[in-house]
Amino acid sequence: MLAAVFNGPGQPLQVHEVPTPVPGPGEALVRVAACGVCHTDLHYIDHDTPTFKPPPLILGHEISGTIEAVEGDGPLTVGAPVLVPAVIGCGHCHACRAGRENVCEGMRMFGNHIDGGYAEFVCVPVKDLIPLPSSLPLRESAIIADALTSPYHAVVNRGRVAPGDHVAVFGCGGIGLNVIQVAAALGARIVAVDIRDDKLALASRLGAEATVNPGATRSTEKAIRALTEGGADVAFECVGLPATQAQAFGATRNGGRLVLVGYSPEAMQLNSGRVMFREMEIVGSLGCRSIDYPRVIELARQGRIRLTELVTGCYPLTHVNDALDALRAGQGVRSIVVPS
Amino acid sequence: MLAAVFNGPGQPLQVHEVPTPVPGPGEALVRVAACGVCHTDLHYIDHDTPTFKPPPLILGHEISGTIEAVEGDGPLTVGAPVLVPAVIGCGHCHACRAGRENVCEGMRMFGNHIDGGYAEFVCVPVKDLIPLPSSLPLRESAIIADALTSPYHAVVNRGRVAPGDHVAVFGCGGIGLNVIQVAAALGARIVAVDIRDDKLALASRLGAEATVNPGATRSTEKAIRALTEGGADVAFECVGLPATQAQAFGATRNGGRLVLVGYSPEAMQLNSGRVMFREMEIVGSLGCRSIDYPRVIELARQGRIRLTELVTGCYPLTHVNDALDALRAGQGVRSIVVPS
Amino acid sequence: MLAAVFNGPGQPLQVHEVPTPVPGPGEALVRVAACGVCHTDLHYIDHDTPTFKPPPLILGHEISGTIEAVEGDGPLTVGAPVLVPAVIGCGHCHACRAGRENVCEGMRMFGNHIDGGYAEFVCVPVKDLIPLPSSLPLRESAIIADALTSPYHAVVNRGRVAPGDHVAVFGCGGIGLNVIQVAAALGARIVAVDIRDDKLALASRLGAEATVNPGATRSTEKAIRALTEGGADVAFECVGLPATQAQAFGATRNGGRLVLVGYSPEAMQLNSGRVMFREMEIVGSLGCRSIDYPRVIELARQGRIRLTELVTGCYPLTHVNDALDALRAGQGVRSIVVPS
Amino acid sequence: MLAAVFNGPGQPLQVHEVPTPVPGPGEALVRVAACGVCHTDLHYIDHDTPTFKPPPLILGHEISGTIEAVEGDGPLTVGAPVLVPAVIGCGHCHACRAGRENVCEGMRMFGNHIDGGYAEFVCVPVKDLIPLPSSLPLRESAIIADALTSPYHAVVNRGRVAPGDHVAVFGCGGIGLNVIQVAAALGARIVAVDIRDDKLALASRLGAEATVNPGATRSTEKAIRALTEGGADVAFECVGLPATQAQAFGATRNGGRLVLVGYSPEAMQLNSGRVMFREMEIVGSLGCRSIDYPRVIELARQGRIRLTELVTGCYPLTHVNDALDALRAGQGVRSIVVPS
Repeated sequence: MLAAVFNGPGQPLQVHEVPTPVPGPGEALVRVAACGVCHTDLHYIDHDTPTFKPPPLILGHEISGTIEAVEGDGPLTVGAPVLVPAVIGCGHCHACRAGRENVCEGMRMFGNHIDGGYAEFVCVPVKDLIPLPSSLPLRESAIIADALTSPYHAVVNRGRVAPGDHVAVFGCGGIGLNVIQVAAALGARIVAVDIRDDKLALASRLGAEATVNPGATRSTEKAIRALTEGGADVAFECVGLPATQAQAFGATRNGGRLVLVGYSPEAMQLNSGRVMFREMEIVGSLGCRSIDYPRVIELARQGRIRLTELVTGCYPLTHVNDALDALRAGQGVRSIVVPS
Repeated sequence: MLAAVFNGPGQPLQVHEVPTPVPGPGEALVRVAACGVCHTDLHYIDHDTPTFKPPPLILGHEISGTIEAVEGDGPLTVGAPVLVPAVIGCGHCHACRAGRENVCEGMRMFGNHIDGGYAEFVCVPVKDLIPLPSSLPLRESAIIADALTSPYHAVVNRGRVAPGDHVAVFGCGGIGLNVIQVAAALGARIVAVDIRDDKLALASRLGAEATVNPGATRSTEKAIRALTEGGADVAFECVGLPATQAQAFGATRNGGRLVLVGYSPEAMQLNSGRVMFREMEIVGSLGCRSIDYPRVIELARQGRIRLTELVTGCYPLTHVNDALDALRAGQGVRSIVVPS
Repeated sequence: MLAAVFNGPGQPLQVHEVPTPVPGPGEALVRVAACGVCHTDLHYIDHDTPTFKPPPLILGHEISGTIEAVEGDGPLTVGAPVLVPAVIGCGHCHACRAGRENVCEGMRMFGNHIDGGYAEFVCVPVKDLIPLPSSLPLRESAIIADALTSPYHAVVNRGRVAPGDHVAVFGCGGIGLNVIQVAAALGARIVAVDIRDDKLALASRLGAEATVNPGATRSTEKAIRALTEGGADVAFECVGLPATQAQAFGATRNGGRLVLVGYSPEAMQLNSGRVMFREMEIVGSLGCRSIDYPRVIELARQGRIRLTELVTGCYPLTHVNDALDALRAGQGVRSIVVPS
Repeated sequence: MLAAVFNGPGQPLQVHEVPTPVPGPGEALVRVAACGVCHTDLHYIDHDTPTFKPPPLILGHEISGTIEAVEGDGPLTVGAPVLVPAVIGCGHCHACRAGRENVCEGMRMFGNHIDGGYAEFVCVPVKDLIPLPSSLPLRESAIIADALTSPYHAVVNRGRVAPGDHVAVFGCGGIGLNVIQVAAALGARIVAVDIRDDKLALASRLGAEATVNPGATRSTEKAIRALTEGGADVAFECVGLPATQAQAFGATRNGGRLVLVGYSPEAMQLNSGRVMFREMEIVGSLGCRSIDYPRVIELARQGRIRLTELVTGCYPLTHVNDALDALRAGQGVRSIVVPS
């Protein structure tokens, strides 16, 4: 089969023929329909973040496809459309047994611990496959498996946003826009924050009621407090910068909750006196449990969260490096790579 | 002022002039715009359910209006549109201090413990008034204060419905339809159950994806299990009959939750072995905390829950007994009474 | 090895030599130190409850022992003392992934789905073994694995008992006494209820502050309400009778929680109007997640829950049928069977 | 009556006769038995933290006493022993209605917003008084009302510590020692951390299983991780220093929870990448809801948390400034002041 192989940092992916994988017991061979292109890939290629399986490795962890073959019995039959979770939990560590598979201590991620979806086929344990309804577009559904499930987890499980809540979202890139989509889907009232007006315009189309551009505002925190009757019930930081974290914290109401979704290698610089005196809560959010995938698919099926509008680029597998270049240039929201 | 006075069971309300109430310290005089007509009123009039304040009593607990006068300072000014909560908590019993004002041990309900909204004016503590946005229709907003807030509490706080959950709603009267509206507003996937096809048609318009008429189905439980991948995550019983409770329980998935919203004077007849072996949860739901009122108003403002479609009758205060007759006859969804 | 084999209902277990099991990959061979004797065994032997693995089957699901051999690497070494969970979750069904392994849809129970602990050896997946501290008595620790973990789950996860809460426990047999032990261990204030005074005396020794014998009390509910400032915050029904369930429900305060721990094949007969109007909660409890086993072991290590006092009989494996007879006769609290 | 009056920062309290307060409607006059001496008092006297009621003000917010007189009906009668909550919630702000009275937006604190307990009498709303059992020593019980209730709230409501959990407590002053007492009372396994060995010895007596002195340890975090199987389930920072916060964070397991109990005017310096990737939770804790006071009293009644051992000084009201001096000098754990 054709695949895009990562041979180490600092070099483009190599697209060439590799042996088609053979499913073992309890596994399915999935014919890839599309694979989303994610910043995580750039961490391996452009920076020195090591992959758990050393190169050569097939990248890509946002995969939709159809069942090509199954080893063993089960409800999924050949030809069925499926979504592949970005990450597979071990099922028996403390986190998995506590219902927090998304922070599994022995997790395996496609395109990191095991071969991923920039290929014609991928092997997946049957127990982890998620059925897709035929009413959803198969290719665009690929981006559900991370770009949409991670925001769902952040909003529903970590942020515990209630319908009608005031929500502030800092950063309107791929993550932030989908945090907005999910929060809007459940009836929250959203203020979007970004320094680019085109991102804010997109945020409005996807469900934000109000927008704040810190570059054009004297005090972002005050602006948000005015828009939210005193502060957001829940704020989401999707940028990964101490300054934005502090802004998001300041825009959260007393007793409220700040969810860190964006990665930052730097220390938080939050007012710990306020954390204590106002009983603030600061929690991290990573990925999504597979039991929540069907819930996200359902929101897409209802049309409450939009897929096609978010897929702003589609590249053949042979041009995967062009897709990565577009991501490096900050073009569009989300690209997918299709094998054929 | 003109008011509809309850002088005891078995007789129509008497509409005549009474002294306009005078707000005490910390109270506002509210000019009633509309007051919703509720089955609870019939309990006092047609059955022997006693009111806490003995007659003569002005009934009506679903009130919208405008501020006519305020004793003391505060953010609300004369002319501001407001919603009056159906019930006022004491603020210091165990339930109130635990954040469960809706089951306050010393609650006062308009039209029951104190004079209500079938009148031109009503006195309300300023601390309990809820501002209404001017974008909502003032009269129809009356029904938020009970007909919509109680379902919000049932769905969000007691049912803990998550976006994408499978939900089954038994009974498509005033309560059930609004449980459907709220559950749909937050992205649930809903099966509505009723023995009347016209109610099911309305349920579909308000957000149910599928409907089941037990009169036309061999097994309601099996039908729902087939529609919900094995059983609803959360089921709501809005009828108040042991047989419907058992159906709703049977239609709930293992480990799932049944919320009793409909009142029944009879004993539940649920399989206790299944409660234990499948760790089922059965919880009651009553009313709504006033801190959730603004969240419900926000859902109405967004258009996610509809008001005007639910107000199927509007009667002048002088014809309040006609409104009660329409309720007795099961006509329409919700009527309001307007003083002028 | 020697084992006690179940060959079908209505006949005693047969103790004879069988092939010693051979651990597969990822499994350990555990030398049994002791195996607790449980009513569940009598369901198979005396009644017609079928076992999932048809006879011949080695019964026994409450096992402590030491590692005899391990296939594969891991932290557990030969000779290490271990506890074997009564039930093994599949790790990938909806319940397991939601952190509710104890209601796993594909669970395997020792002495039911697979061979159990009435034998010299038993095979156990390494990932499921629980280390035991050397400070605990190895044999008596067997009863942790069900007789104590199930009450822990009922009290902590399902009952959500807080330190200082009023708790009522109905039924002071093996389950109820340990519900009392766990609730007392975390600082609850406990009323024990039973119709036998000797059981109540034991309940007092294990942590109950007050006792009620319904046979000697005009109104059990009133007696408990008087002892608990108006009703228990949480009540546990450990008997499995509709009449006791109703008593326990009546002894629970408004807004409180009733946990069903005892199995009953009959329907609950609870006042559904009270469930709704007082927002009562009724939840089932089954078994215990393996991540909670170390917490229970810790309580035993601290001496807050007592083991040796509960082990009122110890039988050699060759006399396992005597242990079952003692159980049938209602003698003592818990017996263990030891292979040698 | 005699009272110790605060006339402004930088000067000792003045003890002299003042008019005995007269209870208004719904209020009780409480004869003070004892009032605990707290660091908060030093904030007003030694630093420039302003009191909400400007001087002259009677300080003291940790009060036990007996009912001297009551205006109105109620369950409390003259002579009954009572505890006075440190803080009174307004009962109707968002926090109060959400069950978070302890962060009430309109709270009134004795010895800050209103006259406190360094006096012979104090006026208290009847609805806020907490009955004390006669089996507890009346004077020493004063310290329940803050020194013990705040730790209860931190451990139970904010830390959500489960029986058998690994807990790390940083700082063994008055707050930390009582966090240890409460955590031990519910069966947690505790590591205490302090730079003073005498404090650690006291921590051990009050329930800590292990102790770590950072001054005598190469890596405090590693030492705690070794003692807690990889990190505490919940850590409590009771010092209020960025360096200690960072240590406590590092000693918390992946997915665990850090509770900030100590006040710090400085910014937290926590690894935000770990917060996100490991889904850490950082929450503040302030005071305690009055509905939890009876639960704390119950733990004291059971002897699970000790009072008399903590009261290391007792001063007559005329010597209140000596008690404050002892506090300034870091002597003992907690002092009380008694009017006679």
